[in-house]
Amino acid sequence: MLKGFFEPSSIAVVGASRTPGKIGYEILRVLVENRRSGVYRGNLYAVNPRSDEMILGVPTYRSVLEIPEPPELAVIVTPAPQTPQALEDCGKKGIRNAVVISGGFAEVGGEGLSLQIRLDEVRRRYGIRVIGPNCVGVISPSTGVDTLFLPVEKELEGATYISSPRPKPGSVALSTQSGAFGVACLDYMYGEGIGLSKFISYGNKIDVDEVDVIEYLRDDPQTKVILIYAESIDRGRKFLELAREVAREKPIVVLKAGRTSAGAKAASSHTAAIAGSDVIYDAAFKQAGIIRVWDMEELFDVAKALAMQPPAEGENVAILTDGGGVGVMAADETEALGLKLAEFSPQTLERLRDLQRSDVIPPIASLTNPIDLTGSATDDSFIGALELILQDPNVFGVIVLALHHVPGVTSELPKRIAEVSRGYGKPIVAMDVGSSQYAVEFRKLFEREGIPAYPEPERAVKAMRALVRYGIARKSLKERSS
Amino acid sequence: MLKGFFEPSSIAVVGASRTPGKIGYEILRVLVENRRSGVYRGNLYAVNPRSDEMILGVPTYRSVLEIPEPPELAVIVTPAPQTPQALEDCGKKGIRNAVVISGGFAEVGGEGLSLQIRLDEVRRRYGIRVIGPNCVGVISPSTGVDTLFLPVEKELEGATYISSPRPKPGSVALSTQSGAFGVACLDYMYGEGIGLSKFISYGNKIDVDEVDVIEYLRDDPQTKVILIYAESIDRGRKFLELAREVAREKPIVVLKAGRTSAGAKAASSHTAAIAGSDVIYDAAFKQAGIIRVWDMEELFDVAKALAMQPPAEGENVAILTDGGGVGVMAADETEALGLKLAEFSPQTLERLRDLQRSDVIPPIASLTNPIDLTGSATDDSFIGALELILQDPNVFGVIVLALHHVPGVTSELPKRIAEVSRGYGKPIVAMDVGSSQYAVEFRKLFEREGIPAYPEPERAVKAMRALVRYGIARKSLKERSS
Repeated sequence: MLKGFFEPSSIAVVGASRTPGKIGYEILRVLVENRRSGVYRGNLYAVNPRSDEMILGVPTYRSVLEIPEPPELAVIVTPAPQTPQALEDCGKKGIRNAVVISGGFAEVGGEGLSLQIRLDEVRRRYGIRVIGPNCVGVISPSTGVDTLFLPVEKELEGATYISSPRPKPGSVALSTQSGAFGVACLDYMYGEGIGLSKFISYGNKIDVDEVDVIEYLRDDPQTKVILIYAESIDRGRKFLELAREVAREKPIVVLKAGRTSAGAKAASSHTAAIAGSDVIYDAAFKQAGIIRVWDMEELFDVAKALAMQPPAEGENVAILTDGGGVGVMAADETEALGLKLAEFSPQTLERLRDLQRSDVIPPIASLTNPIDLTGSATDDSFIGALELILQDPNVFGVIVLALHHVPGVTSELPKRIAEVSRGYGKPIVAMDVGSSQYAVEFRKLFEREGIPAYPEPERAVKAMRALVRYGIARKSLKERSS
Repeated sequence: MLKGFFEPSSIAVVGASRTPGKIGYEILRVLVENRRSGVYRGNLYAVNPRSDEMILGVPTYRSVLEIPEPPELAVIVTPAPQTPQALEDCGKKGIRNAVVISGGFAEVGGEGLSLQIRLDEVRRRYGIRVIGPNCVGVISPSTGVDTLFLPVEKELEGATYISSPRPKPGSVALSTQSGAFGVACLDYMYGEGIGLSKFISYGNKIDVDEVDVIEYLRDDPQTKVILIYAESIDRGRKFLELAREVAREKPIVVLKAGRTSAGAKAASSHTAAIAGSDVIYDAAFKQAGIIRVWDMEELFDVAKALAMQPPAEGENVAILTDGGGVGVMAADETEALGLKLAEFSPQTLERLRDLQRSDVIPPIASLTNPIDLTGSATDDSFIGALELILQDPNVFGVIVLALHHVPGVTSELPKRIAEVSRGYGKPIVAMDVGSSQYAVEFRKLFEREGIPAYPEPERAVKAMRALVRYGIARKSLKERSS
């Protein structure tokens, strides 16, 4: 259980520093801030062998052994050669969980490798759970645990800018083998408005790995979607068994890098990962109900869809748009990705024609799937058509491509779409092209209503495909287990 | 020649209105603004059959025939049934160029179809060049011609937001069969900071089509890259012949929608386009040196790269990064897209090792391609390594994945990269992940230096592939023609 990492009642920063910019200072600074703001509610201790003067107002000790209680979590940032001893002290003190941020172990070879072996030996002797070494650690937005040491702000041409922002709290968990990529992902999530439940980077993973992480996240009530960036998966069989079980309840999305021979070679220099045969990974993921994505953009597009919308119960989808061109592109992408354009029932078509006769849908609109309401569309045309196709039993999900540029579309549309789609249990994804203020705000309005909104038709279709794949996989996993 | 559309010395808006929000008002308003700001320097006339009172300060006439000179361009926005007569008047007046914005022709069938036939007959009789009908027309940022009628601002939850922005002036031309998609593209270009040279949407294209557009853009000194969104290409043979010739000088990038059977069916409802066999299109594009892209994001990512960087002379590229994970992903994408990771020469490797020995490159860096400078990288490590690999004859282009999050990377890097890469004639594309202020500004710094910068590794690799493809195609077209 990793509870002690994410919800500790007390934390000791071992190797705390008085010098701004140093890792041992930056980590403590973030934790102090989180305690000041009330997010982190536990005790905080600093350990610095040279002085017991308070750092940042935090009680400081020369050794872990002098702390008046055994902290639930130790964050170790001492130089690599001192790390085994620091962990030994933690063990003696009765500390059960340690994040070892320090680098200079197996990843540098030679002396580093033997240090890592010593560290592992200490860990085993005391039964301490260890995340790392050589990692950026963990973030739990709801409890204020945050071990990221990268500068939150940086200078750029004389001005100071936010450089490593944290996403807002939410329901998406991210587990990553690469620390730098993990930090970059947090920056991306922040901008995309995707909320984070838990973040974990485990670096050289001498102990805690993907399997432990998924086990923890399975039971974490805040996590609805589990994202994994991996270059290798070591306990493959166990991982797949567990994934199969977890995917019945929560979607697992994997970005597996090192999928080509060039990538695999690069991965082996990066994390000494044995990437393994990609064909085997692919088949295994599919069998375990894991949704595989191919790049970073898709990882988060899919995460957003799975966090906001129910999975689809079948592969037939409808496209509803006010822009013929984006409708054609989405139809192309739908077929290219192996989804199907639903054929509307005769009743649906007849009722759509009724709406056209009563001028709710413009006379020049095209009523077969994709429905092109044209630039003469109004909010009413969208809502009228959407309600009818949601009622059609052949439709399992709807992709709404709503270009805001047309005169008859207003900012009421997102709310009205959310209202009319309630109760059908069919997923909706939205799209509006553009970077104008209006486009940005319009997409935000959709997301405020729980409808993921994308800036390009193809991305909306990919998001819908994930909802379809997960829906079908989940159904089959549940059937097999019952 | 389409010069009269893009550089007219005088424009008449036929069907001008006094009512804000009406198409005949909005178009006149934009032109008046552009004349006021000094971008449009020609004369402006309004035609309104009901009153010759000035509209927006523009001299207004009851008929085109009463205007004191034959305007070089007429923009016709009268209701469809009155359009043939309006064009007839233009012909009598000696007007040679007309944009017919009005809809209600072939796209609605029936009576509309016969109106379109009449319009075409008038056009032929007088030899008037016509863009449209049923289109959004043209934009020429350098001369202030702009016939877009969509509301520039729209209300959203009580606030007024920019809704249909115009991109800054630049070197990318966009030709589009779909008006709504075109407007959405302008919105996207605005946000991406991609500069526009000319915009043209030709709707039902009774006269001006892709061929005319490419002929004009070939000789337009402002246009460096030609983008085309097409659902069908009617004069296929002529188009390909011309493209083959133009592509020797300027890259042509095509997003061909209706590539699947679902998309083709949607296209036929949208613009009555016969999409044709996609395999044939694909082969023909390749032979003509046309760069084909598969979605909107790629269209503009590629446009940016071609506008900013020279094409690559070969398919071997290098990847240089401070983030191992993004390096692995980029290596994957490189191989998946058919590019090759260059093998460095023994001299290059030896000199890289020298830099490592002198601590310019961190000791834990990996020096084979992709070069992973790791999170200990500094600006100096990037510059030192980049200079060496640019000198390597096996390297034809460099993908720089510079995660700004690492402490040693500063805002000086983009400028230094631009400086060190000057004179090699080898393309550079950059990438930094994130939406933090710093990430956004950091990418802008690269682009200010003429280096396109992307937010994801895969997009940077796709951009480089376009530079490679265009370089190879251009070379082969030149060889065949000499």
